[in-house]
Parts: sequence; structure tokens; C-alpha cells
Amino acid sequence: MNQKTYGLGRKIYLELQPPAEEDARGDRERLLEELEAQGIRAALPLSVLRSLYPFCREAEGRVTAALGWQGEKWEVLGLEAGNTARSQYGAAVDLGSTTIMMEVIDLNTGEKVASQSIFNPQIPYGEEILSRIFYTKDQPDHLMELQKKTAEGVNRLLRLCENESGVSGSDILCMTVAGNTTMTHLLLGLFPWPVFETPFAPVAKEGGFFLGAELGIEIPGYAYVFPAAANYLGGDIISGLLEAGFDREKELSVFIDIGTNGELVAGNSEFLLAGAGAAGPALEGGISRYGMRAEAGAVDGVSLVRGRLDLHTIGGEKPRGICGSGITELLAELFLEGWVDSAGSLNEGCSERIIKVKNHLDPEKEELAVCYAWAEESAQGEDLVFTQSDIREFIRTKAAAHTMVEYLLSEFGLEGEEISRFYLAGGFGTHLNLEAAVTIGLYPDLPREKFRILGNASLKGAARLLTDQKALEEVRRLAERITYLQFGNAGDFLEKMYKAQFLPYTDLEQYPTVKEKLRERRTKTREPRGGER
Amino acid sequence: MNQKTYGLGRKIYLELQPPAEEDARGDRERLLEELEAQGIRAALPLSVLRSLYPFCREAEGRVTAALGWQGEKWEVLGLEAGNTARSQYGAAVDLGSTTIMMEVIDLNTGEKVASQSIFNPQIPYGEEILSRIFYTKDQPDHLMELQKKTAEGVNRLLRLCENESGVSGSDILCMTVAGNTTMTHLLLGLFPWPVFETPFAPVAKEGGFFLGAELGIEIPGYAYVFPAAANYLGGDIISGLLEAGFDREKELSVFIDIGTNGELVAGNSEFLLAGAGAAGPALEGGISRYGMRAEAGAVDGVSLVRGRLDLHTIGGEKPRGICGSGITELLAELFLEGWVDSAGSLNEGCSERIIKVKNHLDPEKEELAVCYAWAEESAQGEDLVFTQSDIREFIRTKAAAHTMVEYLLSEFGLEGEEISRFYLAGGFGTHLNLEAAVTIGLYPDLPREKFRILGNASLKGAARLLTDQKALEEVRRLAERITYLQFGNAGDFLEKMYKAQFLPYTDLEQYPTVKEKLRERRTKTREPRGGER
Repeated sequence: MNQKTYGLGRKIYLELQPPAEEDARGDRERLLEELEAQGIRAALPLSVLRSLYPFCREAEGRVTAALGWQGEKWEVLGLEAGNTARSQYGAAVDLGSTTIMMEVIDLNTGEKVASQSIFNPQIPYGEEILSRIFYTKDQPDHLMELQKKTAEGVNRLLRLCENESGVSGSDILCMTVAGNTTMTHLLLGLFPWPVFETPFAPVAKEGGFFLGAELGIEIPGYAYVFPAAANYLGGDIISGLLEAGFDREKELSVFIDIGTNGELVAGNSEFLLAGAGAAGPALEGGISRYGMRAEAGAVDGVSLVRGRLDLHTIGGEKPRGICGSGITELLAELFLEGWVDSAGSLNEGCSERIIKVKNHLDPEKEELAVCYAWAEESAQGEDLVFTQSDIREFIRTKAAAHTMVEYLLSEFGLEGEEISRFYLAGGFGTHLNLEAAVTIGLYPDLPREKFRILGNASLKGAARLLTDQKALEEVRRLAERITYLQFGNAGDFLEKMYKAQFLPYTDLEQYPTVKEKLRERRTKTREPRGGER
Repeated sequence: MNQKTYGLGRKIYLELQPPAEEDARGDRERLLEELEAQGIRAALPLSVLRSLYPFCREAEGRVTAALGWQGEKWEVLGLEAGNTARSQYGAAVDLGSTTIMMEVIDLNTGEKVASQSIFNPQIPYGEEILSRIFYTKDQPDHLMELQKKTAEGVNRLLRLCENESGVSGSDILCMTVAGNTTMTHLLLGLFPWPVFETPFAPVAKEGGFFLGAELGIEIPGYAYVFPAAANYLGGDIISGLLEAGFDREKELSVFIDIGTNGELVAGNSEFLLAGAGAAGPALEGGISRYGMRAEAGAVDGVSLVRGRLDLHTIGGEKPRGICGSGITELLAELFLEGWVDSAGSLNEGCSERIIKVKNHLDPEKEELAVCYAWAEESAQGEDLVFTQSDIREFIRTKAAAHTMVEYLLSEFGLEGEEISRFYLAGGFGTHLNLEAAVTIGLYPDLPREKFRILGNASLKGAARLLTDQKALEEVRRLAERITYLQFGNAGDFLEKMYKAQFLPYTDLEQYPTVKEKLRERRTKTREPRGGER
């Protein structure tokens, strides 16, 4: 009964009866029976059993038990003298292949007290996840090296969060970790190779509860690892779905998380269908020569009004490059302004910002580029350009993402109109300008109120679970219910992909709001502006 | 359903489906779901999870899972390629303060394949248990030193059993350990001090399941530690009661285990009353100057027919000393033969074997002694004697034991006639000549068919549990049901004790069979025999 309102960790203050001739129970029984009287069935590990005497008697029975949920019951993680129940925390982790994020949550209030992120310490072993998988193949030492690096990353976040909030790892009673299947394998020290090799049967789909100490994570309690639904549909998606919560609703919803990989889940309380595919690194800003991660100095917003280009950078600094959301807005504006046509070709001569640069792959040749920051405006003191090749690459990527979504929806027999909500998850989705994303055809042209921008849904779902033990059941149900379709075997995939390599799409009629915008812009840009044209 | 017939460990051969596109379950799920299909809900620890890949695939799914019961469900302890289910063993341990005994049991057949014993490696820290307890008081390092010594003792027994049977520790799936409360505390690394200090509330009465590795015991599985009912009524008694099994019967039974301490439990399916007290080391042969443990060369049997003393020694070797069972027979024979009177005084001149020796405590003085082996007969080449002081000490000890039994029975309001069975447990009880023990008044003079000599009931109960998981429930019920009376507060205890310091008792009428024997002997000894008288 009591457990209904609890999360995965809690503290409880106890006043234990002192031993007496008429009550010669052991300290162990005294503690566990008092917990039981409060509705808590708890296990007592040997380390804590050893600490009971003389501790409990010296504290005159006034002790606070720190408890962690271990899947089937509570476990006493430790005892503190006096009443320390006000201080109880949990940590949620989004274990991304690029970035690891952590939030520390006050389990008393549910409030976030710290939030930190770092680059995944696995990156030196391979920017791309596949390099890391190869690194561990048949090499138990290498596997455990990456396991250790991953745990160290989590520990570094714990220290960063301690610096921010004063809450140290030893105060963290519980942790939830959401990551894709490979990340989960590496955290647990399981060979990720079979995740990527046909027939794509990983070592484990289920995650579960693991003692922090077992994993090298410096917390006294358990880390809960989200289960995967399939090799390419990992715990991060399950966690995101927990946050979205449409699996309990009648209306049909679609959940999209596009990053290095793209995952899509469509469904409602009746069914859940999922697919995934590689979207390519473009959406994380990896392909542009000046593409960069969403860090200080990255252009993340672009507007092009009557031929005048205005930039917004992260931190308000001089531009150093452009990140995924910046690229999306840049391309949308270029298209609306007519600097690129619907095939993605730059129109030479329509602005002095359309310049010729050396093709960086073949310096003998030149190609067009848009210079979004002149040398004197940029942090490096050199022109920042987005080239024709970059545009084509980005369009191919958005086409892949679009096609993935379209393909899955058509596989599932779903039309846009049937979808009542469109959940956009992932760090990329958060920062993305929805209008720009629709304009370039990354997302379908649906009424904007149907879109729900979740932000880092994976991290949010993980944080939610920390304070809601009952959600474990939902996580289990989600992982079980999802029907996963292995992606990429589709015959008409390439044709669909080809059609998507236009802005916003081959058939503009499918994008009525973009058509309308184009009309508006064309009207405006007729008004003359000095110099730039 | 299936579990009904299992013990605490088992192996099960599995044929796992190979991964395929249409069945991309993880190796973990493949294994656990196959076990579940066979009715086994099992946990999978991280170490085994890490071993699944590529092991299961290389073994083409033909694997044997070694399982250990951990209290609430099975745990996969390890996997072996192919079918190795024929080889599954458990070890039962009687953790005595003097001797540790182990039996290795084939879990397939229930048969004993090895049986070994060693002296408890704690002995160098104190012959008496109290010295060891003092050694650890407020000294965590000393405590863990004794913990380690205890575990090393168990490991040594595992190796001895391996030498005997070829079954190594790594084949032992489960272990049961029965010991008194202090021994259990030391094995677990818990301070035993409160066991002996008022109000006699130990750190833990419950034992439970502990991973071998946690305790430093070299088996892959769990060690189950029997619970104690009270500070002086430990897991060894609970285990003995499991073996005796009278707690399920209507008839009233009494269970006695007399060693360094004496424990008595009386009851039936309605009630279980228990008490315990220090019987003194005499019964383990500690007080006689030549008293020794039941080892090769120890006199363990004595007959005195018409003045002629015949000895039996362990291993048939020349006598080196006398052990508890030898002392009991010696004293019984001396009494029946009239060499000592009912007050325990040696009759000077009744045999040339009654000699004068220096009082070893006060060399100025002399005292009488019976020389049970002349110098030329003994291993050491010196007279082996049992002195008047030894006799008095032994009688005090048997009086303490007798009084304890009598006191408890009278506390419980029980008369000898009401008792339908008298279970004698403990290594001492096993070797003891029942007639001799009754003759000196250690046990009451009941019809001999009421006596059940259990032998090492603690070890037997532990072995039984290995192959019968359901017995765990009975162990729990036993520990809960027993009403323990703290012993030694009794007002008339000393008076009772005084009365018991006669052979067999102040009132010979309470020992009719002894009275009859005396009559017979006196008749026989009237026949003259040369020399000795």
C-alpha cells in the first residue's frame, strides 16, 4: 500500500526498541521487523548486516534506513544515525553515444537539483558507434575497458552534479539509465557485436537492476537499466515512450527520435509499431565542413529577411560553425528566399553571399557555397560557408529521415490525418525550429498543434521513473508490447528516398503551409533592398 | 510444482533455440525463458550475464545451467557446455567451536560422497569460545581475522572432500551451515559480543543465504546459514531438530545436545520449549590431565569385569589419554565395581590400580587416582591416571548437565514418564555408551527404547536441507516456534545441582536399572580374583 507513492529509493526514520531481557531479538530482526511494521519488506545485505552492531545501540535505536528498490523488494543500503530522511536523491542518466546527460532529482519533492552533461568518454575509441563495437569484438579486455570508461563518465557526472548542488554520489539512493542497446551493452560489459550482426539478437534486451558497485558506479544503491525492445530500439526510446505516455491513449500518436539514428514508434493503447534506421550524422552537424555540435559559438538560428541574413549563436558568441538546428533553419530560409531551388541547387548570382569555393574533396574543382558569416564576423577570422555538397548531403540525410518516417507510416498503413499527435524527441528535436523542419520536409506538414516537442524524452522518462516505482511495470509493458520491424529491406525504399530529396518534397501539394510561405516570401522579396542582390 | 522435489541446488540441461531473424531475442531472454518454460524462475547475476555471449552460440545452445536457490528464487550460478547435469553436489557443514565437519552430498541421489572434519581454526585464538569472543570485542580487524579463519577452515574441508571424492568446490552448488550463534556470527563477520552480554540480544538471529564469495568460501553458489532461536540456542540445534522431526508429532519428545554447552528442547506439534546452559568442557575431555579429544589413541571404551580393567582405544593404538566417552565408561565401571562410591570418592585399597599421585595443582599434596594404563602399556611410557580431582570435576559437570535437563523438564512441568522419546544429539552423545551414561546419572533412567541416538544431528539436518528445499519452511517455523527460557536464574538450581553430584543421583530409587546392575555386580565381584584386591 505504502509503496504506491514511492520511487526507486527512499529513506525512512526508525525508532528501534532497545534490547531488553524480555525482548532479546537481534539487531537485524529489530530493524527489519520495524520496517515491516511500516509496510516495507526489505533485504539486508551482508555489508549492512555487519554495520548494525554496535551502531544501532550507540544511536539508541534512532536511525535512518536508506532503501533502494532492487526489482522485487527494498534493500537496506545503509544506516545513518538520527533522522536524515530529508536528504534523499536519485540520478537519471541519458547514456547517449555522443553525450551523457544526468539529472539529480530530490526524491522528496521530485525537483531537479542538478543537471550536467559530458561527451561520452567512449568517443576516443571511435566517433562512430560502429568503431567502438569493432574495438570490443572478441576482445574481453577492450570490452571491459569501454565498460570502465562508461562508468567513469557516469562518475564524472556525479561529481559535476555534486559541484552544482552539493549532493554527492553517496546520497544517491537510485539511478536510472536509458541508452540505446549498444550503450547499455557497453555499460553492463556485454559484447555489443551481436547487436549489429544479423540476426540482430543482442546479448540481452532486458536491462534491470544492478548494484552501482558491480558496474563501477559510485553510488550505494542500484542502477536500473532500461530494457530494449530490439537491437536498434533501445532503452532510450522506451524511456522516451514512458515520458510521452501515449501508449495508454486511444488516439493514434507517432513518436520520432532523430539523431545519428532515427527511431519511430507509432501506436496507441491498442498497438505499438516501431522501426529504426540510420539517419546519418548530418543531423548532429557532422557533415558540414563547419558543422559542429551545439556548443558555444555554434550558429543555431538563421533568418533571411529580404536578402538580409541574421544569425543567432549559442552563448551569443562570434560564430564558429553551424549546428544541426542552425543548418535546418539556414536551409529553410535559403529555400524560402529562393537562394536554393527545390532540388537543393544554389542559385548563383542571387546574392553576394553565394560564392565559389574550392571543393574540399577535390581542390582542382570549385563549387558554390553560401557564406553565412564573412571572415571579419567569424570567430576564426575566415569565411564560414555551407557548400553545395553540404546541402546535398544534408538533403540526403533529411530524405533518409523523412523516408524512414514515411516508410514506417505506410508500412503501418497510417496517413498523416489519422495521427493525432506527433512527438518529437531527442536533443536535436528540442532545439529544432519546427517551422524550419517542416519547411525543408524533415517533418510532415501537419497542423502544428499536433506536434509535441518533448526535448530529451529519454532523460525525462528516466527521471520520472526515479520517483514512480509503478512506472517500472509500464516500462516492462512497453518493451513487451512493441512490434519491431527490422528496417531497410523495403523494395520501394529507394524510390521513396529519391522523392524525398527535394525541398520540401517532390510534390509541394503535400506541404500546403510551405507553399503558402513561399508565396508570401516571393511577394516580400519583390521589394528592393540595396547591395545584396 | 517442479520445485517440490528439489533441494538448494540443481543443474538443468537446456537446448536453446539459435538466434534467427524471426527470433531475435537476446541470449539472456533465450536462457531465462527456456528455464521458465521448465517451471524455473531464475535471476541472472551480472557475472553470468557477461559470460552468455559468445558462449551460448558457440555451444549451439546446448548448455547446462547450474542453479542455486537464494531464498526466494533460483539464481543461475554458471553455465557449462553440453549436458553436465549428472554432476551436482552440495555440502553440509556442522560448524562447531571445536570441530568443523563437512559432508558432500550428491544432489542427484542424496548420497554422501565425502565426509571430513578438522579442528576449528579459531582454536589458536582461544580454546574456549569466550576467549575468542573477547579477542574480537571492539576490534573489527580481529573479527574479520576470525571470519577469514573460519572461511578458510571451510575451504580446507572442501579440499579434503575433493581429495576423498574428486568433487571440487566449484562443483558445489549449495552449502548449508549449522553452528551455534557465536560460530554463525564469526562466520558472517558479526560481532559475537552481544551474544554473551545481557540482555543477550545477538546481532542477528536469522541466518539466511549468502554468496560463497561474500563469505570467502570457495563455491560458486550460496551458503545457507541456519537461524538461531536465541543466543544460546543456535542454528546447530535448529538443524538437529529438523533431523529429529518431533515438532510435527503429537507425542512429547525431548532433544538433548550436550557438549561444551548443553541444549535441551522439549515439545511436540503443540509447543517447543528450550533452554541451554554451560555443561563445561569435561564432556569433551578437557578437564582430565590426560583427557583428550576423540582421536587415535584415546581410550573410548572401558570395562571392568571382576577387577580386570580392559580398554578400547580409537584406532586400536596404545592409549595416549582418555576421551569423554571413555571417561563416562570408566566412571560407570568404577562405580559399579565399587572402586568409587556414590559420592565419587575413590576407595583406597580396593585395587592396586588405585594409587597415590601428586596433586598437579598443589605438588605438596597427594591425592588418589585410578591408573587406567600402566606406564608400559601407554603410548607415552608413563602411567595414565584419572585422579580424584578429575572425578570430582567430571561429576560436577555431569551434575550440571543432569541438572540442566532436570531443571528444564521441571520448569516445563514434565515427568520422565510423559516423555515418549529422548533424542540424544551431538558428537559426544553418538559415541557415548548409553548404559554408562545412565549409570553415572548423566541421562535419566528411562526405558532404553525411548532413547534415540541421533549422532551429529546438526550435520545430518544440514545435509537433509541440501536436498529438500521445502525443509527451509520447517527451519523457519522451528526457529519461530521455540520458546527459549534464559537459563541460570533459577533459585533452586544449586540445590538440584548438589543433589546431582552423586552417582548416579542422591536417590538411587530414581535409577532402578542402575540399582539392579549394582546388585548384579556386587554378586559377581564376590567371586575372588587373584592379585588385584
